[in-house]
Amino acid sequence: MPIFGKSKIGDSCFIDSTALIGYPHGAELNLLKENPDKIEGCEIGNDSTIRPGAIYSTAKVGNGTRTGHNFLIRENTIIGDGCLIGTNVVIDNDCNIGDNCSFQTGAYIPTGSKIGNRVFLGPNASLTNDKTPLRTEYNPEPITIEDDATIGSNATLMPGITVGKGAFVAGGAVVTKDVPAWTLAKGCPAIFSELPESLKKPNRLG
Amino acid sequence: MPIFGKSKIGDSCFIDSTALIGYPHGAELNLLKENPDKIEGCEIGNDSTIRPGAIYSTAKVGNGTRTGHNFLIRENTIIGDGCLIGTNVVIDNDCNIGDNCSFQTGAYIPTGSKIGNRVFLGPNASLTNDKTPLRTEYNPEPITIEDDATIGSNATLMPGITVGKGAFVAGGAVVTKDVPAWTLAKGCPAIFSELPESLKKPNRLG
Amino acid sequence: MPIFGKSKIGDSCFIDSTALIGYPHGAELNLLKENPDKIEGCEIGNDSTIRPGAIYSTAKVGNGTRTGHNFLIRENTIIGDGCLIGTNVVIDNDCNIGDNCSFQTGAYIPTGSKIGNRVFLGPNASLTNDKTPLRTEYNPEPITIEDDATIGSNATLMPGITVGKGAFVAGGAVVTKDVPAWTLAKGCPAIFSELPESLKKPNRLG
Repeated sequence: MPIFGKSKIGDSCFIDSTALIGYPHGAELNLLKENPDKIEGCEIGNDSTIRPGAIYSTAKVGNGTRTGHNFLIRENTIIGDGCLIGTNVVIDNDCNIGDNCSFQTGAYIPTGSKIGNRVFLGPNASLTNDKTPLRTEYNPEPITIEDDATIGSNATLMPGITVGKGAFVAGGAVVTKDVPAWTLAKGCPAIFSELPESLKKPNRLG
Repeated sequence: MPIFGKSKIGDSCFIDSTALIGYPHGAELNLLKENPDKIEGCEIGNDSTIRPGAIYSTAKVGNGTRTGHNFLIRENTIIGDGCLIGTNVVIDNDCNIGDNCSFQTGAYIPTGSKIGNRVFLGPNASLTNDKTPLRTEYNPEPITIEDDATIGSNATLMPGITVGKGAFVAGGAVVTKDVPAWTLAKGCPAIFSELPESLKKPNRLG
Repeated sequence: MPIFGKSKIGDSCFIDSTALIGYPHGAELNLLKENPDKIEGCEIGNDSTIRPGAIYSTAKVGNGTRTGHNFLIRENTIIGDGCLIGTNVVIDNDCNIGDNCSFQTGAYIPTGSKIGNRVFLGPNASLTNDKTPLRTEYNPEPITIEDDATIGSNATLMPGITVGKGAFVAGGAVVTKDVPAWTLAKGCPAIFSELPESLKKPNRLG
């Protein structure tokens, strides 16, 4: 089982024998050959199920984490308890994620994103963090998603926006500005309207 | 070669040595250590080419299946003969899929989807199955796609819709209601129009 | 370390021990058992960092290539120096790609695409190459992307188009015709307008 460096795994976990646990981030790659015991490693909470995928060194995932396959969680990212990290989900470095989130297949979360509790990301939903990629010096503007918000499948969120508590972004929407709490956003570019009654409640997880 | 439990592989197949064949689904994970021979396993038809990826226990794929890399096919999903399962394609549990389909890179098919014969899914096309994810008890409304239908790249299909026989969903479309047979759907939200002559014919595979 | 056939690896590279280097393309798969030394293999330039993923036999990547995880580069594709191939990026066969490109997580590049220097593809951006998939004989119309162009997250580019030098395709755009040089394209279908001042400059890499 490829467990790197000083990784810590909680009690009662299932860890697939091919998962990469505490994989060295870029600044540690040279340690792999020379001094693998010095790799910082990751932390995995109790009662977690980790299928084949990768958690980088210095990342932490909480108790009751469940994953699909081929996911990636990068360095310095902190994830709370009870989260589902679906197949092909990528969470880049320095993200901060709460409890009981559900990230479906192929959802993408870039560097520095801040995500609350009970947030749902649909399949292939994409967050972004850079308005002028490569055209200027790298100056990321991460996204914030507040508690109980839902992002639909294939939705695209532009850099720097905040999706408010309980807001619902429809599938395929392209969101170019902040979404107020408990509001529906749909279309390209997304326009806002009142939530239908069926969606006016907090998410049921946790 | 990681072939789990009672998996059955047909004649004249290429199976990559790192593919996960008959990987235990959630309810079987505990058997991995304790009783691996009891894992139900998957079935793979003759003349299939299976590159590195995962087919879960209890799934079945037909004769002449070809795959890319890093794909996932989950439990109780049945796939007919002659299908192409592209790289990064994810097909969740309890799906029913016909013959001679072509699923391109990154296409996503959620739990319970029903797909006919000769259906084409473009790269990163996303099907969905839940109108109120997490907000209510889980009550999926799967999608049906009939024979000879084509779904363009990055298209998003909303829960519960039916895409009729020979219909063509353009790339990037967001489809919010049933698409009649032999109809073109494009835009966000998708609007319907007559198919151009070049598309008024069944798909050529099979 | 799975290095296949006659693959050539430059100096001072990091190659992950599970990466598939020079993986046999379809016409070579039968060599794996019978005559693995005859697999043509791939070429990797100096100072490259190759994480777990796959580079097919006959592909070439230049000096200073960096990859994420679970990427795939297929046969006869040529990539210049200094490119970033992000996690889950798929580059199909017979593509031609310049120097100092940056392809973010999940970007998809189909068979025959031509991409210049310093091109940025955002997360889950999808190129296409076939207007009538399966409905007629396969007659691909690849896309051309010129130097310094930027393609936003989740954007979809239709077959056969050219994105001109320095053009900027916004996130979520669906581009149905050629984009002139130094032009902004946004919406579904995309409409064109003048670039804001902040984007009127070549990309900074290289």
